[in-house]
This record gives sequence, structure tokens and C-alpha cells, in this order.
Amino acid sequence: MLLRGATVTIVGLGLMGGSLALALRGKCAVVIGVARRPELVELAVQSNMVDAAYLDLRLAVAQADIVVLATPVLQIIASIPEVAACMRSGALLMDLGSAKAQVVEAMNTIPVEIAAVGGHPMCGKELGGLESADPSLFEGATFVLTPTKRTTGAAMALAHEMVAATGANPLVLDAEQHDCAAAVISHLPYLLAISLMHAEKEADRHDPLVGMLAASGFRDTTRIAASQVEMMLDTLLTNRQAVEAALALFEKKLAEVRSLLDSPDALCGFLTEAQRQRREIFK
Amino acid sequence: MLLRGATVTIVGLGLMGGSLALALRGKCAVVIGVARRPELVELAVQSNMVDAAYLDLRLAVAQADIVVLATPVLQIIASIPEVAACMRSGALLMDLGSAKAQVVEAMNTIPVEIAAVGGHPMCGKELGGLESADPSLFEGATFVLTPTKRTTGAAMALAHEMVAATGANPLVLDAEQHDCAAAVISHLPYLLAISLMHAEKEADRHDPLVGMLAASGFRDTTRIAASQVEMMLDTLLTNRQAVEAALALFEKKLAEVRSLLDSPDALCGFLTEAQRQRREIFK
Repeated sequence: MLLRGATVTIVGLGLMGGSLALALRGKCAVVIGVARRPELVELAVQSNMVDAAYLDLRLAVAQADIVVLATPVLQIIASIPEVAACMRSGALLMDLGSAKAQVVEAMNTIPVEIAAVGGHPMCGKELGGLESADPSLFEGATFVLTPTKRTTGAAMALAHEMVAATGANPLVLDAEQHDCAAAVISHLPYLLAISLMHAEKEADRHDPLVGMLAASGFRDTTRIAASQVEMMLDTLLTNRQAVEAALALFEKKLAEVRSLLDSPDALCGFLTEAQRQRREIFK
Repeated sequence: MLLRGATVTIVGLGLMGGSLALALRGKCAVVIGVARRPELVELAVQSNMVDAAYLDLRLAVAQADIVVLATPVLQIIASIPEVAACMRSGALLMDLGSAKAQVVEAMNTIPVEIAAVGGHPMCGKELGGLESADPSLFEGATFVLTPTKRTTGAAMALAHEMVAATGANPLVLDAEQHDCAAAVISHLPYLLAISLMHAEKEADRHDPLVGMLAASGFRDTTRIAASQVEMMLDTLLTNRQAVEAALALFEKKLAEVRSLLDSPDALCGFLTEAQRQRREIFK
């Protein structure tokens, strides 16, 4: 199976699912969308985001060569058995969930005639929803692919082809490695932004001027606190162990910088090293 | 004294001083710059950023109706007595330092014939230096003005006029109120970005893939970790008490969100409240 002959069914037409639909238009034979709200189904078809859209999950996945689950992670995990049961023999099941271990675990138990590869594109925007969908969202992004017990060579090749079609760069990682890295690089920063907003809110209650002084630094540091709550809640709950480890690592570093307030030279070195490390990552 | 007839001497031609010079061109009679490095003096004149530039601090401030100190905070505090001693009677001394209590304390002891108003424009970029100077940097920003024992009505009026000329919105705050608010809204986010970079670095040492997964969320959350180290170091050291209080407040909130990982409904509420508060501030 090649992508250009494939019918791709995307379950969930939010920012990620909608953007994937737009990115795959013209790269595969048919794009089908599934949403729970009738107005989204209508909008997806009217805006030419998909060839067809369904409220009925079973009907939509039964036609697919590739099914991509693009809902929040807990819904992905819960839907895997039902979706796999309706899929054609030899079809490929994928997902876009931001935590992978529990997704892979669920994929490991589906019927052997269905192939499955976990996925997580490392991109996003804080504004969710179909209206924010963007065909260029994946361009240049790292798109993690996680093998499962249902991953065949052909399935992985097709997954790579789909990722390449979106303009993203595929990176094969096992679920545990992905989850630990994503906890540090994505879930931890989210919790910091959330906690910072609550600290600001409490300070603001004592002195309403605090919020008035917020400028671009505060805006950027807290940007991801505006992320979709349901998506992030599911991610935190399904990646709990790695998130707790990332929090512990961060707390150690925060305690370190705090203790260095007594030692200007050492503090200077610590700040300079963080600056250097950031330049290293965002060259 | 009105701004349009004034000679303004700006001490320090980095991002803030350079941007102020550019913003005031044509709004006052003469703009003079002071820098410690000969190549900066040359560049500032060649690029028409200032009418004249000096290596000699005393010579430059002796001609001024308004002197604006735009160096890192510890240098501002250290230079206030010398600068004030060289200024013309009736002239106005200001600064752009990001922590105000110790600046105001130093301004309180200068000769009574010199007027002084503290200042802090709530804007910036992570890239410092003369090359990043931007005449529109202050546009729409809140520009805090802090009264001192040397603040006369005429001095405050002239300071307001200068702020308005840059396109910023003046906000009069006493130094303590400014410092507590700035600790929460600016210095705390900086320390979080620094600590997050160190956490990422340690995680990266165990698994070099961590950094490869960094996307726009991590980039924005850590943007201010790239700020000029000397400027931020001085700020932290001169606003230590408020910074420690802000850290304690943040740690309380981080512990709260951590404990909520056991309670999905309460966690959902906590995440939603942070999202709402951010929308409130960045409408």
C-alpha cells in the first residue's frame, strides 16, 4: 500500500486532526474525518478539509487503509479496541497522542491482522480547534513514531511516508524514551506555565498592578498555559510517572539557582550556562 | 524645561539605551551617548543613533538637561553619585534599571539641586546590544516611573513627557511596589526559564534525544533564558528579597499542581483557571 492510493480516516477534527487532514489533501486518495459534533462534520466538509466527514466512527474507520486517532489521549486509549475491531484486515492504525506508553500498550492487544504504529508530532499552537487547523503545522517538525507489537515493516514504511507527506521529519523512538523526553520538553514546561499563572494571580490579588506590568517575557513564558485543557489533562494523567520525575528534576535545579543567590560569581556561571545551552538547542 | 529643547545624555548604549536614543531622535534638541568601548562610540555616531557619543562620562553628563542611566543595575547604582556630581544644577537624572529600590535609595542622597526620577520600561528583547536597538521598542509598553526624594513636580512632568515621546505609557509606582510586581512578572519567569534549561541539559545528558524534541512550546517558555546575563544578574542581586518571595509563591503553586495529579477533576479546574487568568491578562 502506498499513501497516494490510501483512504485515510482521521478521528477527531481539532487542531491536530484538522491540520493533518489539510496536510494530506492531494497526497492520498481520500481523506475522511470523524467528529462528535454535527456542526464540525458540516464545517469540515464545507471547508473542503476532508472528502467526507462522519459522526459514525465505525462507518468511517471501516473504509480506511489508515486510521489516525487525533483526540485527547484518554479517548485515544479508550477507542483503540472498538476502532481496531471495525478496521479492514491489513489496515494501519496510528494516533497523534502526546503520551505514548499507554497508547502502545492498547495497540499491542488489537487483532493481529491490524497493523499499528504510535505517533506524536512535536508541534502545536495554543489555540486549538478546527478553526486553527493549518496545513503547514507539521512542516519541519519532528514527528515521533513508536513501534508496537503490531508494527510490521510495511506499516512502518507507510507511516514514514505519511509523515514525510506532511513535511515533518520522522523519528522512531520507543514509547518509554518518548514519554521521558516529552515530560521534560513539553509536559514540565506546561506545568511551569500553569503554576506561574497561579502565582501571578495570587500576587495580582494583593496588588492588581502586577498584571499591568506583564510584557513580552511573561507572555511567552506563559503561552502554553493557554493550551487546550482536556488535551493536556489527559497527557499529564497518562504520563504521570515521567511527569513526576521531570518535576523532581526541575525542583532540584530551581533549588540550585535559589541557593546561588548568595554567590554572585557562581550564579553568573549558572545563568551563562543556561544561556549557552539554549543557544545550542535553538541554533 | 520642555523635552524639545533638552539635551539628553544616555549612559550605556545597549539594547535599552540604544533604543531610547533612537526613539528620542527628533523629539529633543540633542541626544548624546556614552559607552565604554570606543567601537560602540564610533558605531553610535556613524549610524546616526546619537548626535554625539563620548567615552568620557563626566564630559557627556555635564552638558545634559536629562541624563538617563541605561547600564545594568549595579553599575547604575555605583555611578549615581559621580554622575550627579557632574550634572548641571536643575538637570534631571533618570535610569532604566529593572529593580528600583536601591536605585531610588542612591538617588535620594544626590545634591538637592539635581532632580531624579527612577524609571523602568516594561519591554525588552532577549538579544541585547546596540545592534538590536529598535526605535519602536517602547511603543505601547508600560514605562514605570518611581518618585525619589529628589523628584519635583517639574521633574516628574519632564519624565512623563520623555516617556510619552517614546510611545510608552507612564505609570507612577513607588519602588517597593514596582520591585515586588517585577519579581513576579519578570524576574521569577527568568529563573524558571534558567532552571528549565538546566533540567533539560541534565535530561539531555542521559538521552541526547530530549533536545531534539524541543518545539515551539519549549522555545517560547525558555526564550528569556537567552537574556543578557549581566543585566539579569544585577537585577536578581538588587531585588533579592522580592525575588525570594516570588520563588516561594511559585513553589507553593507548583507543589499544589503536583498534588493535584491525584485528583483529575481538581487538576482540570486548576488548569482551566490558569488558562482563564492568562486570557484575562493578554486579552
